[in-house]
Amino acid sequence: MAGNHFGKLFTVTTFGESHGIAIGGVVDGCPPGLELSEADLQVDLDRRKPGTSRYTTARREADEVKILSGVFEGKTTGTSIGLLIENTDQRSKDYSKIKDIFRPGHADYTYQQKYGLRDYRGGGRSSARETAVRVAAGAIAKKYLKNRLGIEIHGYLSQLGPIELAPVDLSITNDNAFFCADAGKLDELDAYMRELKKSGDSIGARVSVLATGVPVGLGEPVFDRLDADIAHAMMGINAVKGVEIGDGFAVVNQKGSEHRDAMTPQGFKSNRSGGVLGGISSGQDIVAHMALKPTSSISVPGESVDIQGNSAEVVTKGRHDPCVGIRAVPIAEAMLALVLMDHFLRHRAQNADVTSPTPVLPASD
Amino acid sequence: MAGNHFGKLFTVTTFGESHGIAIGGVVDGCPPGLELSEADLQVDLDRRKPGTSRYTTARREADEVKILSGVFEGKTTGTSIGLLIENTDQRSKDYSKIKDIFRPGHADYTYQQKYGLRDYRGGGRSSARETAVRVAAGAIAKKYLKNRLGIEIHGYLSQLGPIELAPVDLSITNDNAFFCADAGKLDELDAYMRELKKSGDSIGARVSVLATGVPVGLGEPVFDRLDADIAHAMMGINAVKGVEIGDGFAVVNQKGSEHRDAMTPQGFKSNRSGGVLGGISSGQDIVAHMALKPTSSISVPGESVDIQGNSAEVVTKGRHDPCVGIRAVPIAEAMLALVLMDHFLRHRAQNADVTSPTPVLPASD
Amino acid sequence: MAGNHFGKLFTVTTFGESHGIAIGGVVDGCPPGLELSEADLQVDLDRRKPGTSRYTTARREADEVKILSGVFEGKTTGTSIGLLIENTDQRSKDYSKIKDIFRPGHADYTYQQKYGLRDYRGGGRSSARETAVRVAAGAIAKKYLKNRLGIEIHGYLSQLGPIELAPVDLSITNDNAFFCADAGKLDELDAYMRELKKSGDSIGARVSVLATGVPVGLGEPVFDRLDADIAHAMMGINAVKGVEIGDGFAVVNQKGSEHRDAMTPQGFKSNRSGGVLGGISSGQDIVAHMALKPTSSISVPGESVDIQGNSAEVVTKGRHDPCVGIRAVPIAEAMLALVLMDHFLRHRAQNADVTSPTPVLPASD
Amino acid sequence: MAGNHFGKLFTVTTFGESHGIAIGGVVDGCPPGLELSEADLQVDLDRRKPGTSRYTTARREADEVKILSGVFEGKTTGTSIGLLIENTDQRSKDYSKIKDIFRPGHADYTYQQKYGLRDYRGGGRSSARETAVRVAAGAIAKKYLKNRLGIEIHGYLSQLGPIELAPVDLSITNDNAFFCADAGKLDELDAYMRELKKSGDSIGARVSVLATGVPVGLGEPVFDRLDADIAHAMMGINAVKGVEIGDGFAVVNQKGSEHRDAMTPQGFKSNRSGGVLGGISSGQDIVAHMALKPTSSISVPGESVDIQGNSAEVVTKGRHDPCVGIRAVPIAEAMLALVLMDHFLRHRAQNADVTSPTPVLPASD
Repeated sequence: MAGNHFGKLFTVTTFGESHGIAIGGVVDGCPPGLELSEADLQVDLDRRKPGTSRYTTARREADEVKILSGVFEGKTTGTSIGLLIENTDQRSKDYSKIKDIFRPGHADYTYQQKYGLRDYRGGGRSSARETAVRVAAGAIAKKYLKNRLGIEIHGYLSQLGPIELAPVDLSITNDNAFFCADAGKLDELDAYMRELKKSGDSIGARVSVLATGVPVGLGEPVFDRLDADIAHAMMGINAVKGVEIGDGFAVVNQKGSEHRDAMTPQGFKSNRSGGVLGGISSGQDIVAHMALKPTSSISVPGESVDIQGNSAEVVTKGRHDPCVGIRAVPIAEAMLALVLMDHFLRHRAQNADVTSPTPVLPASD
Repeated sequence: MAGNHFGKLFTVTTFGESHGIAIGGVVDGCPPGLELSEADLQVDLDRRKPGTSRYTTARREADEVKILSGVFEGKTTGTSIGLLIENTDQRSKDYSKIKDIFRPGHADYTYQQKYGLRDYRGGGRSSARETAVRVAAGAIAKKYLKNRLGIEIHGYLSQLGPIELAPVDLSITNDNAFFCADAGKLDELDAYMRELKKSGDSIGARVSVLATGVPVGLGEPVFDRLDADIAHAMMGINAVKGVEIGDGFAVVNQKGSEHRDAMTPQGFKSNRSGGVLGGISSGQDIVAHMALKPTSSISVPGESVDIQGNSAEVVTKGRHDPCVGIRAVPIAEAMLALVLMDHFLRHRAQNADVTSPTPVLPASD
Repeated sequence: MAGNHFGKLFTVTTFGESHGIAIGGVVDGCPPGLELSEADLQVDLDRRKPGTSRYTTARREADEVKILSGVFEGKTTGTSIGLLIENTDQRSKDYSKIKDIFRPGHADYTYQQKYGLRDYRGGGRSSARETAVRVAAGAIAKKYLKNRLGIEIHGYLSQLGPIELAPVDLSITNDNAFFCADAGKLDELDAYMRELKKSGDSIGARVSVLATGVPVGLGEPVFDRLDADIAHAMMGINAVKGVEIGDGFAVVNQKGSEHRDAMTPQGFKSNRSGGVLGGISSGQDIVAHMALKPTSSISVPGESVDIQGNSAEVVTKGRHDPCVGIRAVPIAEAMLALVLMDHFLRHRAQNADVTSPTPVLPASD
Repeated sequence: MAGNHFGKLFTVTTFGESHGIAIGGVVDGCPPGLELSEADLQVDLDRRKPGTSRYTTARREADEVKILSGVFEGKTTGTSIGLLIENTDQRSKDYSKIKDIFRPGHADYTYQQKYGLRDYRGGGRSSARETAVRVAAGAIAKKYLKNRLGIEIHGYLSQLGPIELAPVDLSITNDNAFFCADAGKLDELDAYMRELKKSGDSIGARVSVLATGVPVGLGEPVFDRLDADIAHAMMGINAVKGVEIGDGFAVVNQKGSEHRDAMTPQGFKSNRSGGVLGGISSGQDIVAHMALKPTSSISVPGESVDIQGNSAEVVTKGRHDPCVGIRAVPIAEAMLALVLMDHFLRHRAQNADVTSPTPVLPASD
C-alpha cells in the first residue's frame, strides 16, 4: 500500500536506496518448473546498468544479482524468489552538500514534505537505481512469456530530443548504446550527445515498446484494462510524463472511419488500436510509447530553495545520465513483461474453462 | 481481480451492463460524518447523462441514482455505500442484428474470445454506460475533497478533432454542451459537429483535467506514484489511448534547464511537471490530459467478420455519440477525484505522525 | 480496505444495514459459462432466513434476491454479478429507545467510538442481516464447486449449549429446524429451547462444516494457507469466538505419533489434520468447527452505560434468535465455499502448467 | 497472491527456504521517523532462535538480521525496509534420504502435488524457519505500537500436553526456556520434556497472547474484523490447528446473561469477549489463544508412501523440536503485532477525522 509492491498475481516487492547497502526484492507468483538462473536476469541488468558508454552516467555498478530463494536444482519451485543486488560504487560524499537543498525537478522537496525526513544520498529511494530490481524481476517474466507462451518484447528509442528514430530494424537495438533501431541515425545521435554534454544540459526522449505473440483475451474490464495497467506501469517509471497505446494522441484528430481497424478473415488490416480493444488484447502486437523528461541533474545552475525556505542555487556535479531516456528502454520492456505476465495469470485463473469455438483471427503483421 | 474494483483505501466496485436491469456499485472506505445526499451525486450524473444535447446520443436515461446504504440521517456512517441506477431506455431490439457480428474497433471480438460468450446488447459490460457509476462514486470523493481539504477538480474539452480549445474561462464549462472553456470557439465547434453528423462519421478529442488545492505529499513511491495511478485511472476510461501529466509528450524535446520548474521562496515559477515530482504531489495544480479515440459506432460501412469468421459489413444504426470525448469530461473529473481521495487516505495512514518543520512553498498559481 | 470486501480472485463486496432500504453486493471473478439463476441462490437464502421456526427470530423477511447483472441468457458472462435483497420488515420503531444506550455484548459502543456516529436501528451494519448477501454469494461458489469440480459442502450443528450432536446422518440436516444430523437428539433440543425461551436467555453453539471432493493443492504458503483463510472467513461471521481445523484444540494433548495421519498406497488412514497439511489441501475432507457465542440481545436485564457515560439498564424486547448458532450453519457453508472457490482460482492461476506424475492418494473416507 | 505477502497497510513479504542461502523479506508501510536498529529486531529473533535450550532443536542458527534499506541515520524513512538473515547451519545431507519420501503429517506430499516439484531439504519453504522473518518484521511493529501508542504484547505458553499453565506472572516468561508465566510448574515441564525426548515422540501445546493498551476502534466490519484477522494470522503459523478469541470454545455452553460483559461508568466488569465487540477493539485487552499440533518429525517410525506411491517407513533423524509450540510464543506475538499495526493504520486512514464526544470507558484491568 506504501507503493513498493507491483502486480496482483505475479508480484514484485522492492526495497533499496541509491546509496544504501543493497537493493533487492521479492518476486511472488512465478509458476513452478521454469528453468531459471542468475544469468537469465543478468542479461537485462547488463543492458540497463550504468557506466557502459559515454552517453550514460560514469557511476560504475556491477549490478550482479543473486537469487536467494525460490529456485531449486535450476527450476522455480513456485515459492517466492528473493533477489539481491549489492551497491558497490556509492560515493556518498558526492551528495553531502545537497543535504539541505532541494534540487529543482527532483523528488527532494516532495519526499521531505511527505515523510518529514529523507535519505538525501543520490536521491535515496527516488533514484532510478531502484529500477534495476524491476529489470531483474521483468527478466523472469520475460523468460516465462517467451518459453511458455511465445510472447516476445522489444523496446527501442523512438526519439531523442528533436531526432526521430524509426523501428527500421529491431534486431540491432542491442548492438548500439542508444537502443536505436534506425542505423542511419546513429551518427546524428552521437553528435547530438557530444554537443549536449559540452553544454552541461540534458534532453528528453521517447521510448517505444512492443510485444509480439500476445494471445487474445488478456486484460480485465473495466478498471484493470490491459492498456490501463500498461499506463500505470509506464508512468511509474522515473521521469515518464506521458504514455500512449497504439496511435495515442494522434487519435484526437482521427475520424472513426479512419481509426477503427478493419477485420477480415485474413486478420486485422491495421493496428491503430495498439493491440487492445475494450481493454483486452486483440491478438495483434501490443504497442506502447512513453515520454521521458530530461533529467534535472545538470551542471547548468538552477534556482531553488533550501530546507529553511531560503533561495539557493543548485549545480549538479555528480555523475548523471544526460539522457535518462536511453537506459529506460530495458526498464520499459521489464514493466511490459510484468504487466503481461500478471494478466496472463489473471486471465487463466478466471477463464481456463473457456474453450471458444470462435475462430481466432490470424496475426496480420 | 477480475477488474471491476478500483482503489485501495477509497474503493469502488461496479456492476451492470448497458441493457441489463440496472447498473450500480459499492463505495467502501468513505470517512464517516460527511453530509451526503443523492442530490450531491445527481449533479455530476446529469452532466454525463446522454440525451441532453444534439451532440450526444439520443438514448434517454434519467440516470437517477439511489443510495441504498452507508448514509444515516444525512451523513456517511463509514460503512459501505450501495449505489443503484436503473436502466430505463434499453431498446435491446436495436442490437439483435449484431449478435453474431464483431463490430470493428469495439470490444465484441475480444470479449467473445476472452469469455466464450458475451452480452451483445449495446456492448454489454464494455459499454460506456458503466461509467455512470464511476461518476456517482467520484461525486462522493469530490465532495469530501472540496469540503474537508479544499481540493477542487475542473475538467474541460481541450481539443475536438482539429479544433484546439484553451482553458480561457473554466467557469463556463458547465454552461455549454461541449464542456468548453473557450467561449470564442463555440460556434466553430457547433458547425464542425453539424457537418460531422451529416457525414455519419465520428471524431476524436482531447480532455484535460486539473485539481487545485492539492497538498504536498500525495502519492506513493515507487510503483503507485500519483501520476502512475492517474494514468491507470484515465487509460481505464473507455476510448482513451493516451495520457499526459503536465507537459506530457512535449518533454521529449525539452532540455533539462528548460523543463525543471524553478523553486523560489515565493513558490514554483512554472508547472511543467503538472504538480507531481518523484510521483508525489508538489502542492502545485495537478494537470492531466487524455486522448479519446473516435467511436467506431458510425453509419459509415465498415469491414469486419462474423462469429464464424466470415466477412461481414457493419453499419451502426443505433444511438451513439459522434464525439465520445465530450461526455468524458465529467468521467475524467470523477476518476481524478477517486485517485486523489485514495491517495489522501493512503498518505494519512502512513504519515499522519509527520509534523514537518520544513516550509511549504506557497502555490504559485 | 474498510472491510466490506472478501476474497482475492473470487471476490464479494457487500453493503447494507439491518433497517435500510436494501442489502446487496457484487460478486466479481466468477468464471463465465456457469448456468445460474436466482433460484440457485434462493435455496440457501431460504435456509438462512428468519421467521421459519419457533427457534428463530420472529422478524419475517422474504429475502428474495435479484441478480442485476453478470448473467446473460442463463449463464454467467465473466463480468461482475450485482445482487440485491430488499428489506421488507424493518420495524425501526423497535429500536428508537436504544438510540442513546450501548447494548452490552454488542457492537454499539465500538461502532460509536470508531466512527463517531452509528446507525442504531437493529445494529445497522453490524447486524447479522448482512450475512444474507454472503449466503447468496456463497451459493454461486457452491454451484461452481459442485458442477465443475465435484466439491460439496455440508454444515451442521454439532453442539447447542450442553447438548453434543454427532454427524450421524448429514442427509437430514435440512429436514429439521436445527440443521442437526443426529435425529435422536431432536426432542432434547426442542425441550431445551422451549425452556430457554421461557427464561428469556440465550445460548451458545458449535457449528461444523466439511467439504468433500476437494482436490490436492489448494492453499498458498506461507500466509494464505487454506486453513488460515478458513479461520479468517469463519471468525468473520457474527458471534464466532473460536475456529478449529481437524482435531483443533484436542491436538494440545496429542503426541506426534498419535496425531500424524499415516499415509498408505490405499490413502490416508485418518484425518486428524482436517484435510490440510502445510496449509495446502491434502485431498481429504476439509473439516472445520466454530464456536458461536450466545446473543446478548435477551430479555434478562443487563448492566450498561448510555452515550453520556451514565449507568443504564438494558432489556432487549426486539425480535431475536435465542441461539444465533443455528442459522449460522448456511453462513458457515457459504464462507467455506467462498474460500475454496477463491483458492481454486488462485491455484489454477499459478499452477495450471503442473502435470504431476506423482500418484494422488485415493480419498480414504 | 501466492501467499507470501501479509497485511494491507503495514505489509510483510517474505522469501527463503530452510536450507537455502538466506531468508528475508520486505516490510512496507512503516511510518517514517521511528528510531530503529538491528538490535531492536535481534531481541525477538534471539527469543525464537533454535539451539538455545535442551528443549528445542539442536540446529544452531545465529539468526542475525541485517536491515538493508528504509532506515537512515537511525530512523525509518517511510520507504520499504529490506531484511536479510543468512542461513549458516544448513546441513543438507541430513535430508537427502527423504528426497523421495513423503513424511506423514508434513507438507511434503501437498507441496509435491501442488507444484510438481519441491525443495525437500528441511521442508524447504514449508519449514518454520521462515517464521524468523515474521518475528523480525513483528519487532518493528511492536516498537511502533509500544513507543507511539503504548500498546504492549505478551505471549506465554498456556499448556504443554496435559500440563496447564496459568498466566501467574508475565514478567518471568523470558527468564525460562518455556515462555512459562507459572513458576511453580517449571519442574514439572522439565520432567515431562526429559521423558518425552527419551521416547522419541513430540507433544502439542497451547500458546496465549494478549495485547494491553489497545485503543477502541481497531478492526473493520464486516469481513476484516480484528478477530478475523487475528485468526488468519494465528492459523497461518506452522502447526496451528485452532484459534480462540476471549472465552473461545467455552462460549458454546454459556448463556447470554453470563457471556455479555457488563459495562459500567467504571469500565467493563469482565472480558469474556477478549477485547473485541462486533469485530472492533473495545479498549480492553485483546486476548487470543492457539493450539499447536505436535511435530510429525519424530524418531518413532511412521507409515507413509514414496513418490512412486509405494509404502515406506519414515523415521526422522534430523534435529527437531520435541514441542514446536514453545518457540511459537514469539511468533504469535509478532503476528499479533503485525495485525494490530495494520489495523491501526487502516483505522487512521478512514477515521482520523472522528473526534468522538462519547466517553471512552476506562480500562477495567
